[in-house]
Amino acid sequence: MKKPSKPPIIHHPWKIITDRFDPAFIPAYESIFSIGNGYMGQRANFEEDYSGPHLQGTYIGGIYYPDKTRVGWWKVGYPEYFAKVPNSPNWIGIHIQVGDEILDLAKGQVTDFRMELDMQTDVLTRELSFRFPSGKDICIQSQRFISMHTKSLGVIRYRITPINFDETIKISPYLDGGIKNSDANYGEYFWDVQQILTGQDHDAYLIAETRKTRFGVCTGMQNRFYVNGKAITPPKITIKSDKKITFDYSIPLRQGDILILEKYAVVTHTLNYPYDQLQDENREILKKAAGNGWEKLLQNHINAWKKIWETADVQIQGDVAAQQGIRYNILQLNHTYTGHDPRLNIGPKGFTGEKYGGGTYWDTEAFCLPFYLGTKNKEVAKNLLLYRFRHLPKAIENAEKLGFSGGAALYPMVTMNGEESHNEWEITFEEIHRNGAIVYAIYNYVNYTGDESYIRDYGMEVMIAIARFWAQRFGFSKPKGKYVLLGVTGPNEYENNVNNNWYTAYIARWNLEYTLDWIERLRIEHPEHWKRIEKLTGLRPDEIQHWRELSANIYFPYDPERQIYLQQDGFLDKEIRPASTIPDEQRPINQHWSWDRILRSCFIKQADVLQGMYFFENHFTRDSLKRHFDFYEPLTVHESSLSPCVHAVLASALDMDQKAYELYLRTARLDLDDYNAEVHEGLHITSMAGTWMAVVQGFGGMRTFDGQLSFRPKLPKAWTSLGFKINYRDRLLRVYITRQSVKIENLSDKPVRFRLFENEIHLPGGEHTELSFQKHNA
Amino acid sequence: MKKPSKPPIIHHPWKIITDRFDPAFIPAYESIFSIGNGYMGQRANFEEDYSGPHLQGTYIGGIYYPDKTRVGWWKVGYPEYFAKVPNSPNWIGIHIQVGDEILDLAKGQVTDFRMELDMQTDVLTRELSFRFPSGKDICIQSQRFISMHTKSLGVIRYRITPINFDETIKISPYLDGGIKNSDANYGEYFWDVQQILTGQDHDAYLIAETRKTRFGVCTGMQNRFYVNGKAITPPKITIKSDKKITFDYSIPLRQGDILILEKYAVVTHTLNYPYDQLQDENREILKKAAGNGWEKLLQNHINAWKKIWETADVQIQGDVAAQQGIRYNILQLNHTYTGHDPRLNIGPKGFTGEKYGGGTYWDTEAFCLPFYLGTKNKEVAKNLLLYRFRHLPKAIENAEKLGFSGGAALYPMVTMNGEESHNEWEITFEEIHRNGAIVYAIYNYVNYTGDESYIRDYGMEVMIAIARFWAQRFGFSKPKGKYVLLGVTGPNEYENNVNNNWYTAYIARWNLEYTLDWIERLRIEHPEHWKRIEKLTGLRPDEIQHWRELSANIYFPYDPERQIYLQQDGFLDKEIRPASTIPDEQRPINQHWSWDRILRSCFIKQADVLQGMYFFENHFTRDSLKRHFDFYEPLTVHESSLSPCVHAVLASALDMDQKAYELYLRTARLDLDDYNAEVHEGLHITSMAGTWMAVVQGFGGMRTFDGQLSFRPKLPKAWTSLGFKINYRDRLLRVYITRQSVKIENLSDKPVRFRLFENEIHLPGGEHTELSFQKHNA
Repeated sequence: MKKPSKPPIIHHPWKIITDRFDPAFIPAYESIFSIGNGYMGQRANFEEDYSGPHLQGTYIGGIYYPDKTRVGWWKVGYPEYFAKVPNSPNWIGIHIQVGDEILDLAKGQVTDFRMELDMQTDVLTRELSFRFPSGKDICIQSQRFISMHTKSLGVIRYRITPINFDETIKISPYLDGGIKNSDANYGEYFWDVQQILTGQDHDAYLIAETRKTRFGVCTGMQNRFYVNGKAITPPKITIKSDKKITFDYSIPLRQGDILILEKYAVVTHTLNYPYDQLQDENREILKKAAGNGWEKLLQNHINAWKKIWETADVQIQGDVAAQQGIRYNILQLNHTYTGHDPRLNIGPKGFTGEKYGGGTYWDTEAFCLPFYLGTKNKEVAKNLLLYRFRHLPKAIENAEKLGFSGGAALYPMVTMNGEESHNEWEITFEEIHRNGAIVYAIYNYVNYTGDESYIRDYGMEVMIAIARFWAQRFGFSKPKGKYVLLGVTGPNEYENNVNNNWYTAYIARWNLEYTLDWIERLRIEHPEHWKRIEKLTGLRPDEIQHWRELSANIYFPYDPERQIYLQQDGFLDKEIRPASTIPDEQRPINQHWSWDRILRSCFIKQADVLQGMYFFENHFTRDSLKRHFDFYEPLTVHESSLSPCVHAVLASALDMDQKAYELYLRTARLDLDDYNAEVHEGLHITSMAGTWMAVVQGFGGMRTFDGQLSFRPKLPKAWTSLGFKINYRDRLLRVYITRQSVKIENLSDKPVRFRLFENEIHLPGGEHTELSFQKHNA
Repeated sequence: MKKPSKPPIIHHPWKIITDRFDPAFIPAYESIFSIGNGYMGQRANFEEDYSGPHLQGTYIGGIYYPDKTRVGWWKVGYPEYFAKVPNSPNWIGIHIQVGDEILDLAKGQVTDFRMELDMQTDVLTRELSFRFPSGKDICIQSQRFISMHTKSLGVIRYRITPINFDETIKISPYLDGGIKNSDANYGEYFWDVQQILTGQDHDAYLIAETRKTRFGVCTGMQNRFYVNGKAITPPKITIKSDKKITFDYSIPLRQGDILILEKYAVVTHTLNYPYDQLQDENREILKKAAGNGWEKLLQNHINAWKKIWETADVQIQGDVAAQQGIRYNILQLNHTYTGHDPRLNIGPKGFTGEKYGGGTYWDTEAFCLPFYLGTKNKEVAKNLLLYRFRHLPKAIENAEKLGFSGGAALYPMVTMNGEESHNEWEITFEEIHRNGAIVYAIYNYVNYTGDESYIRDYGMEVMIAIARFWAQRFGFSKPKGKYVLLGVTGPNEYENNVNNNWYTAYIARWNLEYTLDWIERLRIEHPEHWKRIEKLTGLRPDEIQHWRELSANIYFPYDPERQIYLQQDGFLDKEIRPASTIPDEQRPINQHWSWDRILRSCFIKQADVLQGMYFFENHFTRDSLKRHFDFYEPLTVHESSLSPCVHAVLASALDMDQKAYELYLRTARLDLDDYNAEVHEGLHITSMAGTWMAVVQGFGGMRTFDGQLSFRPKLPKAWTSLGFKINYRDRLLRVYITRQSVKIENLSDKPVRFRLFENEIHLPGGEHTELSFQKHNA
């Protein structure tokens, strides 16, 4: 797909709007205006035919297909397949025909056009005027939503008005199972369409199974018609083919008539129902939905979103672009994951595209968890953790494939079902720091929520298995007299197969220490739990002893002259020069430089040492943080969307306000402004959580280290106020920062303690505190 | 293809024989009994139909197809395609039908079977008895050769005798252009069959073009029949399809009759003729060949081989397996490359299989050149050098793709036409030591032949372009105060993206020094040539100055305690343990260990530091060589077929006779005994030259450093004598080593000087010298 130029999006605090029709932008619009509800998602494809370049995309959470791996040179340990979310049967499609002419925006003249995604209600509306080649003019309005109230339901309201003619219009809602993944490695089709059934009430069902994995999916539709506000039941012709069912309705219209089709669609699948009940369950939901009708369903949907916005909204005054950007990120995160099912997770593109296959990366633990901790009740974050807990046996198998033993676990780089999907040795086998983030997420959850029961019920097994991995993965260097970590790739993927990557070694050591600490605590505080875990894992005292010895003797590369930790062995043998010396036309370097050139340069893709200092900010002095930031940030090209947010948080903490704001801007509207000219491939969902982090932890200055909530807020110059809410240990707090003051309200009925700058505050339920900056700065 | 167990090959000094028919061995036989003449080659496929697992393979030198690259994760700089020798139209095929039954050795009973490749005459003979399911018995003898006299010609003599029945036999020679490459990345078909033509004399022509590259190939056949020794002209039915032409002949036979079909086949192509003359040229050669007949053509072929063996034969007494092995290697090297055309080169599998695509690797310069220098006149080795000279503009382009400039050249890792085909970043972009071998080959040729004109006419341009590459590729390390080589892969591909690989840095420094030396010499000795080269290359004085400074300040990792150079930075941080500690069931480690585990281990795939010490043995003291050998060889798993030979030569030099012999055995019969259970994929052609090296440089102790020929011969205990010939500076010498003495004859009419052990010898033409070991050791 050719890269379009930037799609024009109109600024608005609550709406995403475009009014420009241009075939070059359609693939980008399809991503930007995507909708979803965590259960399923839909690109903003047109309901009617469209023959221009675009990517038809309907995706269902938790369903995957094992696509045969494409690899140049096979290495032992590579997975046989890459598990991908399959592009699923199309439920939105409606063919429209007027006379001999099929409605296709690529074949005629679009004289007026507007798409609008209302973020408050999460309804996608499209309005347009169209002139057929014959000169006939029509007006179309389509509205649709995927219900946040009834997860399996999508509803479309499609309105047609003939402007300058009287004629019978053929309108043909359909279900199509003949959809292919654009990212299929060998062009394979991922589905078997098993049954196509029709019901008694203009309803139809397409039952398809994924090949190999045999996930069953039933997609149902039911149709209702209105002319000029009056319900009609036009005659129906049913057309079935191997993979598609269409109902043809021919409806005579006069100039100015308003024809409305309400298409109700329901997706049920075998993650939730037995295969042989898929159709019955689908029919029931469909029947109820059609009975309720558009208005009632919409109200339920809006109410559900109201609850989400109540805790998740971030309010920025004085900068409508920033306001739009942050709300858009929150919206799309909720499209992707709502935490209702521990079998689901967050793909880097959510349900908005096929790149990266929809699998789970360390993005979830490292970047997304804080957003869900902060904006939802703790069960949601817990479900993200349970996802990994459920995959522990597969992580142990994965480590065994790479030669580890004794219950050591290596979590996969990319996964859908716990098995590794990734196949690039320097990442699949060497980017093992991902194990560290799994434990960090446990810490983050327990520390943030105070729910220590998670450790004994689930976390400890994972922590022990990961500690076992580290214990085997470190080697002992005789010349250094220390334990070393050879042949790894850090978060900075612009270095491969390096020795002693500081971040990986540091988080590994912390994993060991955290695990050892909790073993001690459980032994004393919950001996019965500890006995069970000891038995279950077969953990031996000599293992614990080895972990102690290992964690106390790990080698970290260090430069005494600059007083900084080095990203890896030999880093200073490189020519050190700032990224600003790279000519613009060579950026991004990963699109212009050969890989070896990137590797031997000093340039950093995303936070690496600084990622560690972000996670463990409380381990370092401010001076040390500043030295490391000043050394590493200028070398960083931020060519991962996950990079600027971490730097923005650190820059805020270091009072580098201008830098923090610049870095924040790089992610906040990444997709809306299509900075990287790649939004047509899908949205950068996981980095959207990083934007939230940059606001709440960066400008809000919120920290929760060691169970101590604290804030050091500051307002970017461009804004007049910033407000956000935080759910912390079951207390809902509202933070409101203006140029003059910061106000923190405790919206719960329980007291909360926190530190605001240097002030220790104890805030009873329902009360608020306000600190004027003047006073603080005085 | 399932790996067969070892194919049974009978020991014989001049013949490769098997007498066991087993479908499991057929793919291996097809490789082992391959024939060729440097112009084209043919796997030992059966002429008649064979429905069992096998790989039909006909290959033509210099013809290639750009197969779309298969890669998991694209990197900037990767080539779009991998140039492959296409599997070419089949000229050997003959369908045989008796009644309703088609002759197919997989569908009936093979009651007697023998295949024999006579290495002296290079004729492949197959004899068998076969019982059809109906009970009819026939005897078959097929003989074929690809003419070493008339390069475009192949001849088959196919004999059938009905044993227990009288019946009309249908015998149908054909040409088939519908052959696919088994290694095609996307299953594509590489050819367009353009024309199928018939002539007046039982001749037919199939003209095909490779897709994309449009190489035209005309394959012609002409057929002659004899019954009981009497020529016959049976009636012919012509059957043409899109890609195939068949002549059906029905010939009534009685029990005991001998039917012979002589099938003459000629391959002409557009590397040698214009497209529109392909058929005419083909017809002329075919007509002449058929006129000459089998016996005369065979005699010409045998005479051509007699000349090859006269200088190339190595004679081993007392060990028939070793004798067979070394002759087999010499035979197959001559099948692959005879030096008649500088556009051709030596693929790792020659014409015997499709693995590695048939392209040129550094194997040619590093391993094959000595064989061709030693056994042929110097034009042959010169053609190998000219191949790279012709590719210089492409090597400069290749370097530009990776960000180099100013006429710097990086020769490709794998190539057919000078462009890079390889796509694995750690090799394609980082295994840059291959540049070093290109210059080493120039040195080797000039030093060995004394032909210094090569430097001024061709070599200097290549050397300057490569020096320019090194000058840009080294960086300066401030902490080390030296020039460093970051992010490389050495010959030991079990280390990737390492810093300061000693071998690469050492050969790079030597490249620079050798180039600087020759610049000085040319300036003084051939100023007019130098002026031309200076102008042509635009070489500036500051470049030369930089090369001097760089070459004098290169960093080499060194361990002062062990007094050895380290393979790369940080090598001693690994756990150092001998390869003998790896359990047998985990060998070869590249089939059992994940790549990261291999990388962080100390185990070495093939000579790396020791490869350098082999090339530059004269730079090191014997003590130093011994220290390095004793450290590195035990860590070496020899999982490249190119590894044992280098170690065998060094072990011989270090008087580690038992070790040298063990290492020699690992390559000498690698394919005949199918050590690695992979011979079905094709033969290890380039490592066969290493076996020759192990004999001549190892046991023969021949060296040519600094224009000084010398010998330190020794006879392995298992042998009673070893004899070989060497063409050195246009003098043919014969070396004959027995337990008692070594005898060196000067078979030329010009005098030669050499050192035999410590003795300086001046041997006039036609004379010989003999040294008794008793005397020498006394």
